[in-house]
Amino acid sequence: MSRWAPNARERLENAALDLFAENGYEETTVAQIADRAGMNRATFFRHFADKREVLFGGEDALAGLFADAIRAAPPGATLTECLRAALAAAGVAMTPQLRAAAARRRLVVAANSELQERGLLKHARVTQSITAALRERGTDELTARMGAEMGMLAFSVAFDRWMKANDDEPFPPFADTALSDLQARAAELVLPSRISA
Amino acid sequence: MSRWAPNARERLENAALDLFAENGYEETTVAQIADRAGMNRATFFRHFADKREVLFGGEDALAGLFADAIRAAPPGATLTECLRAALAAAGVAMTPQLRAAAARRRLVVAANSELQERGLLKHARVTQSITAALRERGTDELTARMGAEMGMLAFSVAFDRWMKANDDEPFPPFADTALSDLQARAAELVLPSRISA
Repeated sequence: MSRWAPNARERLENAALDLFAENGYEETTVAQIADRAGMNRATFFRHFADKREVLFGGEDALAGLFADAIRAAPPGATLTECLRAALAAAGVAMTPQLRAAAARRRLVVAANSELQERGLLKHARVTQSITAALRERGTDELTARMGAEMGMLAFSVAFDRWMKANDDEPFPPFADTALSDLQARAAELVLPSRISA
Repeated sequence: MSRWAPNARERLENAALDLFAENGYEETTVAQIADRAGMNRATFFRHFADKREVLFGGEDALAGLFADAIRAAPPGATLTECLRAALAAAGVAMTPQLRAAAARRRLVVAANSELQERGLLKHARVTQSITAALRERGTDELTARMGAEMGMLAFSVAFDRWMKANDDEPFPPFADTALSDLQARAAELVLPSRISA
């Protein structure tokens, strides 16, 4: 199946996920991944720094999409408008192929604590990338950090809901709903209501 | 100096930080740490699971303080009141000794990417602990996750500011101010104002 995938990076990713599922992440070598994809090790290393990056390369792309969208938002855009633009831009990457790979990736990461730590590091880097893009617009540091955390939380929630939805549902409405849900919750911090104990 | 520290855990921590500074984190062994503290390896392992935990054991204590304070908050406390109670409880641990050790710990962690990943994992666990304590009060999941992220951000900001302040300043006013600052920023998500580009 991997052999007919449309491009080298995706073929390598599919081969790696096949092998991780068959033999385990630890037991799989880069040489085996390249071989399964019908390529050599050099080609692998043109696309991924190491085996771990097959699982987390998407986060770097995501950080770029978020940051570019925030930079491209119109002058005078509100914080929420910036976050909405970032999530909308991420929607472009949220293809059925990504969704299928993400489900397989999650199984591998869930079984390995080192990979979970790596995932947190990537999450932190994406958050920093959003913070930096907001800071470039003149947003004060605390607002930028809060905005980045809220944007990432909205993305995580949207992504989890999208992964559980029917196969053919597009991502953008999930992003919009998650951000609106989060805005409603943020009101609790500003105009607090009583939480039942 | 370590020898006259008031208790075994603190003596071990001081010995470890001395050795990390002198010889590097990677090069320091548990046997050396125990020896420097005038103890044996068995005593070390009664206090710390491994060498890395000398740097991050405080996060587990912090998670406990936060969660207990949220559980103990009066019925009907608002989300902000719960977070304020959590930060106030953490203040108990924010002693001059902790502050001095934290400054040394940061230098070690800053020089080692594996330790930075570990720090992110601990941060995530503390966040999960706050989320769980809020969920136990009947807070919905998204509000609990948002509240935990905001509580942790307030704590990080307060801690950074406290570390930069004069030696004799107590922690609680920093926590109060950071949380209030963050509440003011959260208004941007609820009642957006224009951010200049």
